[in-house]
Amino acid sequence: MDLPASFGLDEPVDVDALTTALTTALDGRWGELRRGVRAQMATAVVRDNSDLTTEQYRQRVFDDLHLLAKTGPARFGFDPKYGGMGDPAASVVAHEMLGFGDLSLMVKAGVQWGLFGGAVQLLGTRRHHERYLRDIMDLQLTGCFAMTETGHGSDVQHLRTTAAYDPATAEFVIGTPDPAARKDYIGNAARDGRMAVVFAQLIVDGRSRGVHALLVPIRDGDGNPMPGVSIEDCGRKGGLNGVDNGRLSFRDVRVPREALLNRFGDVGEDGRYSSPIESDGRRFFTMIGTLIRGRISVAGTAGSATKRALAIAVGYSNTRRQFERPGGQGEVVLLDYQAHQGKLLPALATSYALSFAQHELVGGLGELSGEGPRDERQQRELESRAAGIKAVATWHATATIQACREACGGAGYLAENLLTTLKADTDVFTTFEGDNTVLLQLVAKGLLTNYQSQVGDLGTLATARFIAEQFAGAFIERTAARGVIERLLAAGPGRDGETVLFDRAWQIRAFEDREKHMLDGLARRLRRAAGLSGDGNGVDRGDRGDRGDRGAFAIFNDAQDHLLRTARVHIDRVVLEAFVGAVERCPSPAARALLSRVCDLYVLASIEGDLAWFLAHGRLTAVRAKSVTGAVNALCELLRPHAQALVDAFAIPRPYLGAAILAGAGS
Amino acid sequence: MDLPASFGLDEPVDVDALTTALTTALDGRWGELRRGVRAQMATAVVRDNSDLTTEQYRQRVFDDLHLLAKTGPARFGFDPKYGGMGDPAASVVAHEMLGFGDLSLMVKAGVQWGLFGGAVQLLGTRRHHERYLRDIMDLQLTGCFAMTETGHGSDVQHLRTTAAYDPATAEFVIGTPDPAARKDYIGNAARDGRMAVVFAQLIVDGRSRGVHALLVPIRDGDGNPMPGVSIEDCGRKGGLNGVDNGRLSFRDVRVPREALLNRFGDVGEDGRYSSPIESDGRRFFTMIGTLIRGRISVAGTAGSATKRALAIAVGYSNTRRQFERPGGQGEVVLLDYQAHQGKLLPALATSYALSFAQHELVGGLGELSGEGPRDERQQRELESRAAGIKAVATWHATATIQACREACGGAGYLAENLLTTLKADTDVFTTFEGDNTVLLQLVAKGLLTNYQSQVGDLGTLATARFIAEQFAGAFIERTAARGVIERLLAAGPGRDGETVLFDRAWQIRAFEDREKHMLDGLARRLRRAAGLSGDGNGVDRGDRGDRGDRGAFAIFNDAQDHLLRTARVHIDRVVLEAFVGAVERCPSPAARALLSRVCDLYVLASIEGDLAWFLAHGRLTAVRAKSVTGAVNALCELLRPHAQALVDAFAIPRPYLGAAILAGAGS
Repeated sequence: MDLPASFGLDEPVDVDALTTALTTALDGRWGELRRGVRAQMATAVVRDNSDLTTEQYRQRVFDDLHLLAKTGPARFGFDPKYGGMGDPAASVVAHEMLGFGDLSLMVKAGVQWGLFGGAVQLLGTRRHHERYLRDIMDLQLTGCFAMTETGHGSDVQHLRTTAAYDPATAEFVIGTPDPAARKDYIGNAARDGRMAVVFAQLIVDGRSRGVHALLVPIRDGDGNPMPGVSIEDCGRKGGLNGVDNGRLSFRDVRVPREALLNRFGDVGEDGRYSSPIESDGRRFFTMIGTLIRGRISVAGTAGSATKRALAIAVGYSNTRRQFERPGGQGEVVLLDYQAHQGKLLPALATSYALSFAQHELVGGLGELSGEGPRDERQQRELESRAAGIKAVATWHATATIQACREACGGAGYLAENLLTTLKADTDVFTTFEGDNTVLLQLVAKGLLTNYQSQVGDLGTLATARFIAEQFAGAFIERTAARGVIERLLAAGPGRDGETVLFDRAWQIRAFEDREKHMLDGLARRLRRAAGLSGDGNGVDRGDRGDRGDRGAFAIFNDAQDHLLRTARVHIDRVVLEAFVGAVERCPSPAARALLSRVCDLYVLASIEGDLAWFLAHGRLTAVRAKSVTGAVNALCELLRPHAQALVDAFAIPRPYLGAAILAGAGS
Repeated sequence: MDLPASFGLDEPVDVDALTTALTTALDGRWGELRRGVRAQMATAVVRDNSDLTTEQYRQRVFDDLHLLAKTGPARFGFDPKYGGMGDPAASVVAHEMLGFGDLSLMVKAGVQWGLFGGAVQLLGTRRHHERYLRDIMDLQLTGCFAMTETGHGSDVQHLRTTAAYDPATAEFVIGTPDPAARKDYIGNAARDGRMAVVFAQLIVDGRSRGVHALLVPIRDGDGNPMPGVSIEDCGRKGGLNGVDNGRLSFRDVRVPREALLNRFGDVGEDGRYSSPIESDGRRFFTMIGTLIRGRISVAGTAGSATKRALAIAVGYSNTRRQFERPGGQGEVVLLDYQAHQGKLLPALATSYALSFAQHELVGGLGELSGEGPRDERQQRELESRAAGIKAVATWHATATIQACREACGGAGYLAENLLTTLKADTDVFTTFEGDNTVLLQLVAKGLLTNYQSQVGDLGTLATARFIAEQFAGAFIERTAARGVIERLLAAGPGRDGETVLFDRAWQIRAFEDREKHMLDGLARRLRRAAGLSGDGNGVDRGDRGDRGDRGAFAIFNDAQDHLLRTARVHIDRVVLEAFVGAVERCPSPAARALLSRVCDLYVLASIEGDLAWFLAHGRLTAVRAKSVTGAVNALCELLRPHAQALVDAFAIPRPYLGAAILAGAGS
């Protein structure tokens, strides 16, 4: 198709100014912080780690971690009273920037300061902060986050390590009851960690209080395992081999009463359990909720790695030539081929979209981390969005880095061109810090229950009952840029025919309408599960016997694809709103014009990927559906001359773009 | 949706007998050969290569190659006169079996005996066979296949290395005119190869005769580069690090006249060039065509690696449990979740489909390699299918192994569970032995020109002209199981309503109809390029100047997605026919019933993936489109109890299924 116009993109621009304006938009409100980290990274000497043994690589990363300990990322997230900077949002942004570099180092830092240190900060109280935070920041105390077990990864609530209180000695006894209860995949465990935050079922006075976290020393000063602690090495992995993942088992390991990270649950000197949160389930989800920054960090670093891959693949495709142009006018540059544009440019547009969505997440984290009363519903909503965007961003990373590798052919397979390492290192992102499929189910559950604070501990059937009783129809709650979006929608349809596809209001409505339709349909299906499972009161009591319960499982299970797709289209809409807001905020007319078309490409490529839904539900006619594909192709062609500026605007520090193919070695 | 019936799959069966019958179907006509290789592999001691340095790994693979030299795969493809076994089809099947093992070893063997040895066998003549074949088989002579250059990978016809004949000394002078003309990514070059088949532009008497191959020594007996030969190491790669890929450059390297592999073009003692094939282009494509077995091998080994990944992921998912079943009846086995079935079972069905398509390819290779006159059209058609199935099978491998890794969560990321190595090693398959995107374009070109022998050397514009003059409408030529398919179609529609989706005749018609429609539409679009490019005679002469030629390029380029999709749906249809034929041939009723449903899943998942096309072109109503998704889910549920038998039937030798998670370590 022909585009309705060139949208002014064919006018001459100052490319440097345009690139700078795009970078400013991508930096968001953390421009100063990012410029600082960038300046630091610009002087780095990047070494090739691809042929190191696991032990050599671990040593190198541990050395680099000590250098990093002297910088901001080690301190942003911690209490200023102990030398921290009290800015969790900055911590996440700094990690995102580290994502341009060696991802083993980024993960190692994330384990030490984000997961381990973060748990001490957020689940512990003053006695832990005073004693440990300084040592954690400066690496005097290295630690692990020992949550996942071999038998329970996604289902943390049912992990089986125990911490039984012994009132006689005022100690907790940590135990691994069976092999499936060993802690597994634990970063820092195989080699460097001296202590672990161990998540265990807390048993006080014979009664289980659910999962709590305790500080447990795992190695002595000489690096040997503490008595009763068994440590295994997970060995080589698909990537991130600078991180020492290991397994921990405990046999009657005793730690003092004060080892319990007791912000949300404590055992007093009198041996009694107490908690500010009565419900075991709600307490559990509150504790888990504090760890949200890990997921936001993963989404951010996945974004950085993806940008790095795109910068390499777009840069190479912009110079590499293959096959004569008909008529003998030299060979064609790869990025001039429609198929090549199709591999890279929609992905590039999605990377822009996810960057802006990430801004909203980090902004939300900053707001909720402030002083003052916490809005619990807002917290749940942010957790849900963090889960969903983490899933979407990490799948985008996996698919895009793969596409970049293939777009560079054989050159893309050489370690010197960085793409295979990026692929290998990011590959686990889709399943760690929450398996993506499980995370999307959480998102859908949040939508169905409108983030009611009490649903955290609702099981499947209770969720069904909740839906049956309370779900009154999908409600589209706008997120970012609420005012802007309402203004755009109020302006009404400005176009018709093919050009309506480029109408922002039409685009927003298309995403909202799809989400609402899917959510309503999903609620209708799941309500039936409530009916099958009991009389409305007997839910979760299991008093209807085997038959009804299996029926309810089947209804939920049969709707799983519907559930996952609903979560997905919800996140698509949240991401689009963030993009719309960023376009509107952009002060440079040239950059805004370009971003606006990048937003079009994000939207239309997304619709093209889901075209069957739009057709089957009468939202697009066959003719208009075909014009969606035409529009995607036309946008790729329109944006192609700006592709280099769009990746240059990522402002990736030079040392991290040292791919041989970008140095012209391949041409 | 409810399935029309359980298709008899709920009746009790003897699982061992069923598995054996499935294996027999998968083995096809090479059962005895496969059983032999399998027995050999069953005794292998598999070592963990994941933490070796590049040098250590290369040494290990080279050692293993010497063990392999004593077995069939080293000899199958060569002339019996010199100790070979004269059975190229067996050679391809044996390689496919090696694909269950270490893929570096498989590739190293493929370079030595398939590419290097194959070129000597197929492009050389008696003088080369007598002198070299025995040494090649027993590794006295290790060699490289030096085709790809840094600047020209896909466009082999335009590579720039030169071989100029010097009549004064009766020698060829091999030269690398510029850095982009260096040979790149060449297996066996960095460390072990002593000789290379070098592809170069042959220049005789000042006139270029196009690309020819010559035998050039690159290392002396001590392993040092020969005078004038520069060798670089490509270094670490994303995988296959047991293979020593390198770069070769030549400065005035002289080889005797007899070094030319002269089956299709020779320089006589009189210094005159002669060839049995007059056209430079046709000669080039004939030479390249002999190398078809490399592509077929890659498709086969990609299939083996994919099966191995599926066996691991299905096996694990069949025991691993996570999250309580509503009603408190224990935890749910992963493979009982619909989403998990959706990740693995349609891919499993596609692996079956591609296995049967592979049988047809190998069978075709066997027929064409026999004595007697070669049918050139048949040869082109086989080349085209090999290209297309290679593309589809390797993309399937990349996507499926990735899905298997994710389906195993954190465990899937540990090297001990093999999936990350499978992913890394197979990753390059999509871009080596022909970039998949380029290969699919070849497929489409073959369809548009009906495999006319003279189109091999038609450029873009000449192709357009050919289409304009000769394309008379798409013609669906059935491939495998022609009789069976015609019988099925003649039986007419046996069902209606939802159950028509399970009607084999309907399925075949759906694929044929889609292919025909797309191909006709594509031809219509491309005809316009012929009109733009000249008066019908001036094509390729460039006499319309800049404007017309750019117009023609734009028309081709704008249609690239259409072209690629047409190739894809053609291959889908070829694969389906192979599957239909295999189902019909299967003598065991129980296995046939199961295979028939696996075929349904292959077809309907494929249609589901392309649902937008079927909707937009009025082939499916919205209601029926929804029932496609329902049918896919229902088939997954129906096949789920048989999933273990379906992967067991791959009969992967035990030592190669040594994933820790299959040993129960993970539960």
